[in-house]
Amino acid sequence: MKPITYRDAGVDIEAGARAVELMKEAVRATYGPEVLAGIGAFGGLFDISALKGMQAPVLVASTDGVGTKTKIAAALGRFETIGFDIVNHCVNDILVQGARPLFFLDYIAASRLQPERVATVVRSIAAACQAVGCALLGGETAEMPGVYEPNEFDLVGTVVGVVERSQIIDGRTIRPGDQVIGLAAAGLHTNGYSLARRVFEGWDLHAGIPELGQPLGEALLVPHRAYLAEVQRLQAANITLKGLAHITGGGLVDNPPRILPPGTALDLPRGSWPIPPIFQLIQRVGQIDETEMARTFNLGLGMLAVVSAEQLDQALAVLGDGAWAVGEIVSEKQE
Amino acid sequence: MKPITYRDAGVDIEAGARAVELMKEAVRATYGPEVLAGIGAFGGLFDISALKGMQAPVLVASTDGVGTKTKIAAALGRFETIGFDIVNHCVNDILVQGARPLFFLDYIAASRLQPERVATVVRSIAAACQAVGCALLGGETAEMPGVYEPNEFDLVGTVVGVVERSQIIDGRTIRPGDQVIGLAAAGLHTNGYSLARRVFEGWDLHAGIPELGQPLGEALLVPHRAYLAEVQRLQAANITLKGLAHITGGGLVDNPPRILPPGTALDLPRGSWPIPPIFQLIQRVGQIDETEMARTFNLGLGMLAVVSAEQLDQALAVLGDGAWAVGEIVSEKQE
Repeated sequence: MKPITYRDAGVDIEAGARAVELMKEAVRATYGPEVLAGIGAFGGLFDISALKGMQAPVLVASTDGVGTKTKIAAALGRFETIGFDIVNHCVNDILVQGARPLFFLDYIAASRLQPERVATVVRSIAAACQAVGCALLGGETAEMPGVYEPNEFDLVGTVVGVVERSQIIDGRTIRPGDQVIGLAAAGLHTNGYSLARRVFEGWDLHAGIPELGQPLGEALLVPHRAYLAEVQRLQAANITLKGLAHITGGGLVDNPPRILPPGTALDLPRGSWPIPPIFQLIQRVGQIDETEMARTFNLGLGMLAVVSAEQLDQALAVLGDGAWAVGEIVSEKQE
Repeated sequence: MKPITYRDAGVDIEAGARAVELMKEAVRATYGPEVLAGIGAFGGLFDISALKGMQAPVLVASTDGVGTKTKIAAALGRFETIGFDIVNHCVNDILVQGARPLFFLDYIAASRLQPERVATVVRSIAAACQAVGCALLGGETAEMPGVYEPNEFDLVGTVVGVVERSQIIDGRTIRPGDQVIGLAAAGLHTNGYSLARRVFEGWDLHAGIPELGQPLGEALLVPHRAYLAEVQRLQAANITLKGLAHITGGGLVDNPPRILPPGTALDLPRGSWPIPPIFQLIQRVGQIDETEMARTFNLGLGMLAVVSAEQLDQALAVLGDGAWAVGEIVSEKQE
């Protein structure tokens, strides 16, 4: 029997090391003065002495993946934007509780690591972190032969942010009559890809689709938006954000109830915002009913913000384009 | 064409919700008073007001996976211990910098979610978190049809801990003449599984192996140990830990250099600690050379601790069984 090495077994430690070399600079560019250690340490170090000035600092953390959007990226061989998907998804998940991101960690796994591909993904993560002002504090790449399908990969992220305890947004003050603003999504964001891929099975991702004005693959790959800037603009204008819902898995049906107090419901009339062509195409081609669509996709609304009726107009003025008054909080009986 | 639903596309939101129901109680049992929100919020909330009493609190964070140990668990249908692997791996990764864990987040993905299996994994994660006194603050389960091989899964964890800045362990004071203590590993921990599975290809995981004293599958599934209690005992006895190395991917060859100052090296003579039978079996069956073994596996040492020669005997006395004086720091030329 020929002696077996780790490389024979499908794990290439040097490929991992090469990927680290390729991404190093982009990662370091995300470091502020709080980051104490460089790549290579077992854990990332983030000095939070500055938070001692807060009354009651609360860390808010979230882990998530980008789902099977990775399959679109892999099929197209395009890895420059998927990092924005994972970072922005995670940032939005803590933003809805009022937190700003401090640092992020990533995890990339595949049956076999391709160093250049991994480095491209990590560079896009680093660019997304820079855009929202958080450090890419750590990460892991893993080769898992026999766990992942050939040519596929998974991408997971964890964000840790901070909010003053008294400033946590939790929906507690939401009352019937409050108004709901919808913030435009850039596309599917990171949800519903298994269904979308099923609908478009056999379609050429490179073929231009007139009603989309771009190839199908491009439309499906548009990255998840972060709403950090919008929320900060609203807060700077003294708009009280009574609740924020990130429209992720479960779509417009399952996410809003997560922030609504007992006895209240959301009335979201169709037609109060423009549904982007990609969702109309998915629905038509897949003959998907309305409820299934709303339970799976964001339908063009990546985040909902609940404000008092008095502050609605001011909030819309602050936000400008890409924000609409889409609905109202009602008491549950009226639903 | 039949209308397509999300469930047709391989994603079962209700299965996810059912898994959450099954794991809820175990997760809540890990919550201390610092945890502000329950399952269902977009992000987990952890109040760090208590850290304001520290001079310069530094957060230490690490993300990691358990590698293809998941394949052993899946093949055996045993999911009660894999949570200890991911938690203890992550805890050790921040422990080597002197940090104690505050909270943990998990990610479990498969081509199809099996709620009972997911719940078993999460309960084992929760039990492991309780054992090291950290909160299971959040997590995500993802169905990724077409990304994962059938019946396989990945398990990823992120830990966030804290250390006083002046107490960070970083190997800076390590000098030639310092002594190295090896702490016993429980088994392969979470490294080298792709190679081990290759070596044992075609073997029956259920068959008893006399030299192991247990079935092969059992020996391969023994969970990763955490060394938090050992480190705390050493610190309580005023032993100065000059450096700690977690023996993970890259084994005894690649991990120790991560903490050694320039100009120093580690002399780790074979024979200074007992190599457990599972590693001897792997080496013999796979005809693997010594360097490849040491670069892949922990060979029975899950963590190395560097102490001054003066404190060696006291440290060994504090540790008791399962700790050995395994080597010495030398200047690089002598290597």
